[in-house]
Amino acid sequence: MLGNLVPPALGIFGLYAAFYIYRRIKQYPAGATEVTAIGDQIHLGAMVFMRREYLTLGAFGAVVLVLLYYFLGPKTAIAFLVGALASGLAGYFGMFTATHANVRTTTAANREGAATALSVAFFGGSVMGLLVASTGLLGLGTLYLVFGSDPETAHAIHGFGMGASTVALFSRVGGGIFTKSADVGADLVGKVEAGIPEDDPRNPGVIADNVGDNVGDVAGMGSDIFESYCGAMIATIAIASTMALAATDALGGREMLMALPLQLAAVGLLCSIAGVYLVTRSSDKAPEKALRTGTLGASGLFIAAAFLVIIALGGSTAIWGAVVAGAVGGVIIGLVTEYYTGGPPVRRIAKSGETGTATVMITGLAVGMQSVVIPVLTICAIIFVSNALVGLYGVGIAAVGMLATVGITMAIDAYGPVADNAGGIAEMAGLGKETREITDSLDELGNTTAAIGKGFAIGAAALAALAIITAFVETVAAGTPDFMLRLNDPEVLIGMFVGGLLPFLIASITMTAVGDAAYAMIHEIRRQFREIPGLLEGSGTPDTARCVDIATSAALRRMVLPGVIAVAAPVVIGFGISPEALGGMLGGALVSCVLLALTMANAGGAWDNAKKWVEKGNLGGKGSEVHKAAVVGDTVGDPFKDTSGPSMNILINVMAIVSLVIAPLLI
Amino acid sequence: MLGNLVPPALGIFGLYAAFYIYRRIKQYPAGATEVTAIGDQIHLGAMVFMRREYLTLGAFGAVVLVLLYYFLGPKTAIAFLVGALASGLAGYFGMFTATHANVRTTTAANREGAATALSVAFFGGSVMGLLVASTGLLGLGTLYLVFGSDPETAHAIHGFGMGASTVALFSRVGGGIFTKSADVGADLVGKVEAGIPEDDPRNPGVIADNVGDNVGDVAGMGSDIFESYCGAMIATIAIASTMALAATDALGGREMLMALPLQLAAVGLLCSIAGVYLVTRSSDKAPEKALRTGTLGASGLFIAAAFLVIIALGGSTAIWGAVVAGAVGGVIIGLVTEYYTGGPPVRRIAKSGETGTATVMITGLAVGMQSVVIPVLTICAIIFVSNALVGLYGVGIAAVGMLATVGITMAIDAYGPVADNAGGIAEMAGLGKETREITDSLDELGNTTAAIGKGFAIGAAALAALAIITAFVETVAAGTPDFMLRLNDPEVLIGMFVGGLLPFLIASITMTAVGDAAYAMIHEIRRQFREIPGLLEGSGTPDTARCVDIATSAALRRMVLPGVIAVAAPVVIGFGISPEALGGMLGGALVSCVLLALTMANAGGAWDNAKKWVEKGNLGGKGSEVHKAAVVGDTVGDPFKDTSGPSMNILINVMAIVSLVIAPLLI
Repeated sequence: MLGNLVPPALGIFGLYAAFYIYRRIKQYPAGATEVTAIGDQIHLGAMVFMRREYLTLGAFGAVVLVLLYYFLGPKTAIAFLVGALASGLAGYFGMFTATHANVRTTTAANREGAATALSVAFFGGSVMGLLVASTGLLGLGTLYLVFGSDPETAHAIHGFGMGASTVALFSRVGGGIFTKSADVGADLVGKVEAGIPEDDPRNPGVIADNVGDNVGDVAGMGSDIFESYCGAMIATIAIASTMALAATDALGGREMLMALPLQLAAVGLLCSIAGVYLVTRSSDKAPEKALRTGTLGASGLFIAAAFLVIIALGGSTAIWGAVVAGAVGGVIIGLVTEYYTGGPPVRRIAKSGETGTATVMITGLAVGMQSVVIPVLTICAIIFVSNALVGLYGVGIAAVGMLATVGITMAIDAYGPVADNAGGIAEMAGLGKETREITDSLDELGNTTAAIGKGFAIGAAALAALAIITAFVETVAAGTPDFMLRLNDPEVLIGMFVGGLLPFLIASITMTAVGDAAYAMIHEIRRQFREIPGLLEGSGTPDTARCVDIATSAALRRMVLPGVIAVAAPVVIGFGISPEALGGMLGGALVSCVLLALTMANAGGAWDNAKKWVEKGNLGGKGSEVHKAAVVGDTVGDPFKDTSGPSMNILINVMAIVSLVIAPLLI
Repeated sequence: MLGNLVPPALGIFGLYAAFYIYRRIKQYPAGATEVTAIGDQIHLGAMVFMRREYLTLGAFGAVVLVLLYYFLGPKTAIAFLVGALASGLAGYFGMFTATHANVRTTTAANREGAATALSVAFFGGSVMGLLVASTGLLGLGTLYLVFGSDPETAHAIHGFGMGASTVALFSRVGGGIFTKSADVGADLVGKVEAGIPEDDPRNPGVIADNVGDNVGDVAGMGSDIFESYCGAMIATIAIASTMALAATDALGGREMLMALPLQLAAVGLLCSIAGVYLVTRSSDKAPEKALRTGTLGASGLFIAAAFLVIIALGGSTAIWGAVVAGAVGGVIIGLVTEYYTGGPPVRRIAKSGETGTATVMITGLAVGMQSVVIPVLTICAIIFVSNALVGLYGVGIAAVGMLATVGITMAIDAYGPVADNAGGIAEMAGLGKETREITDSLDELGNTTAAIGKGFAIGAAALAALAIITAFVETVAAGTPDFMLRLNDPEVLIGMFVGGLLPFLIASITMTAVGDAAYAMIHEIRRQFREIPGLLEGSGTPDTARCVDIATSAALRRMVLPGVIAVAAPVVIGFGISPEALGGMLGGALVSCVLLALTMANAGGAWDNAKKWVEKGNLGGKGSEVHKAAVVGDTVGDPFKDTSGPSMNILINVMAIVSLVIAPLLI
């Protein structure tokens, strides 16, 4: 089918667009020496971390590669390698660009004003967004072209998903531990103990903090979304390949159903590029309006284009209904997240600070737990609608629908840390109040988009994982006539309990890792304040590299255990007990992961913004007792929303994709 | 079968034993006027709360009663009424006794010494323990005698479980909200703001705090255990009644299998009475040794006696294996709880206070999440072993095995709040340092036993709920040939998501209720300190009744919504979607409830003891920065361990029993 050339071709086009934007960013001036010096430190720290991380990842990946080659043959092994490389390269170059865009945003804010600064920051995020979409499309599209739609070889592309998941596991978990140990450590000593502002150049932890924004929220988030994006497509292809003939014929034929996910994603990439263009055209408007125009424009365009694609390929219009359910569901989850991390609940948390820190904690946790209700019901509605329209295939294609415009969603997500960095650099370089005001307003917007992005990422990960799990069940069932996942089968039940507890265990491990690393960071920063002469007075020079190194080592050391658990659990349960127990485990883990991820991300986001709301002068403002209580909430929320919460997306997707990959061995 | 007379007869014997112990308690002197005056205030506050609570409960229960009568006939309605009355009377008289035992413990500590004080406090708890076991046995045994083993009428006794669950819902949730709003409010203003000791008579909230210990930890806990105890028996009877004939014959016949749960519980009651005797005989030993001798003695005795009972009734010895699995599993869960709430993790939490409040919160939450692993794996092991030995019936009989010696377990549980109250009364009455030292040591032991009791209650509730869910599935399957709970059926999946989110919603509602009520309490106590002349100096009299009233009103108002959700959810999902979705919902809720309950109970217990450890002079002791951080942890832990966590036990059991009751209507 000639059409199968379209996805990789558009992938190359997307890469070109990303490169074009990168060149435009580089045309902006990097700025004065004191600005670029700080920017270079951040860039260098981030790149050193990435290289060291990829080294650990490489060792881990090599073991997996050998195992895959040995047990599942060369095709799966190649697909794994391609998937890992695609994700790794997207993360590397995306972050490379982001750490060039941050200084240029600062300088643009200083010299040109808000509109240009917004453009540069958004360009910085766009490169990451387009790279995620393009490398995914190019890599997966090429494999599909080479392996073809033959079910035997089509199974090999599951390896691509596993490669993407392995990178995500390390990028997201390692990046999450790095960013929050630096953040918590720098804040607790700098802001609370020494009483100096955030991002003050005297604070030895402040470079590590800014590096963390890039490795966690740019590269880590990118690998997370990449994994869901490719996972959704792979799962849908797998479901189509195992469907009954009569069912496929009713919807438009097996070949069409298998090709559709990549075709939709290809169209989605074009819509994302159009969205990026829309944002830059609207940069004279209020920034939040510009970003919203881009996202909603791209979504609307995609919904219309998807209809045409499905008709053109001869598919049933019922499929389009499932695509719409996914795309709309994603928007709803984003809006709910915005409400809980920016609406009345935030002010309720801040107000509870009037009776102390404990009530801030209780209220924040309650808000986080309450915030799961509508997103989870939305996921239920997507499952219901898409399944009613086109059966199990619907769940997969709904996930594809939600993730097709990932280019623009991820661009807006990655804009946040670039703007955050720009503010940090302005503060460290001692630029004027006007510059800070511009970067502050960009940063504030970035906080909101980041929270929405997190909600979207969780919803997308859940739906993608569900699609992968469905593909796993269908694959095993196709080869095992009496395979049945009965909830009242003790093995399924035991699997569900084990699956349910794993997210709690991983959350505990990652939070402890942040706690321990922050503890080491706090002692190092305290030591530097004590031992480096004149540091607090501004005449001494902090040893920022030492802090970056502490965060890097902690992240690399502590990301291994969660990774091993996530990869090993399906293998141990699947072969050690039974495929039924493994199915139960995936079900239990899916529910548990989604609930914990939403609770943690939204509680964390709400605490963050409650603190910001107080800092704007409400309830006594900065320095008040309420503020102190809100700062504690924010600090607890940091690992919640940026380490443990996001790890849940990875955990469920890794376990699902490993199960799908080993499915042929379980039959 | 003449043997069916044994359980109700032993129930009456147990009631007599409880009355005998009550009379022995009353023989001890109540003490001096200042002691009895305080005791009377606590007693009165608790009784007023219970009466007002039962009034609300009565209105709610009347509606349920009418619905049951209309849809399921008079027998189910009668059983519901008997179950509610049995639970209600056990809670009422148990608490009545506890609030007489508390003053007598204080006076014994003052006049006679530690050994006598321990005896009185333990007697106080024993009455609650024996009442739970006896009223359960008498009520359920009588219904079984009257309704007989005919499957048609046997279904009616499910109403008994629903009655017990309805009372538990209100007692546990209402009691939990009461106790923690009073505790948090009194502590925050008294200890933190005014700087006066805990239980200081000048604090207007201190009577409410002591009342809360009784309504939450005596009556609430009793109704929780009562529900699991009866639920396990009812479910096992139901499973036996729907088993295939061949399976029942292999194990000893249907009639025997249906009768066995009550027979085992009857023997368990005797073992519990023996355990109580063992404790009183060992009161010259170290208190923790005395209590342990009683529990382990009763467990050992029960395991041996269960073997004889099963042999005597002609049952297969494989059944005994399942009983042992349940009994041993309960002990393991208790020990793990003891480790996490008393071992090295507690000191780790305390140590994290060196870097501030935020790290105390992060470490505590991580400890709570980690603590789920071994208990959940233990539950998995019980499921595996009992099912391998005797099939699904094994899961039910394992739950019965875990809960059979509930008399002594509950006695030791209820001992805690009596000892806690005794200490409070000693402080308020200004008794000497020696008296306080005795009551402090009794209280400290009570904290440990309370934490273990909570772990046991969660494990027991989980296993009982699992048995009830199994009975529900078997009942529906028996009447619907193609009923199948396939995990990959979208309806089952949607049910699982909904079931998974409900515990988070209920936890959020109950935590918010505590937060709001504590907020009102704090403002009232601050007002009294401000407006009542000479209150802080000791010459004014606090208006304690006003504080009791605030906690009572808040508890009664805020317990209704969780109650309605728990009862309505199975009905809405079962009739609104399908029995399959309901099955999925119960599965998702079971996993989610157990995980949240363990996390919250153990994090709360660990924070509590971390604070106590610092107060003993470690890491700077009382008044240090570490102590302040630990106090915040303890305050957040309060609603975790005593309100929201325990609500999970109730939620899953209520939803399971409602499903079982409506099962015939779903066929």
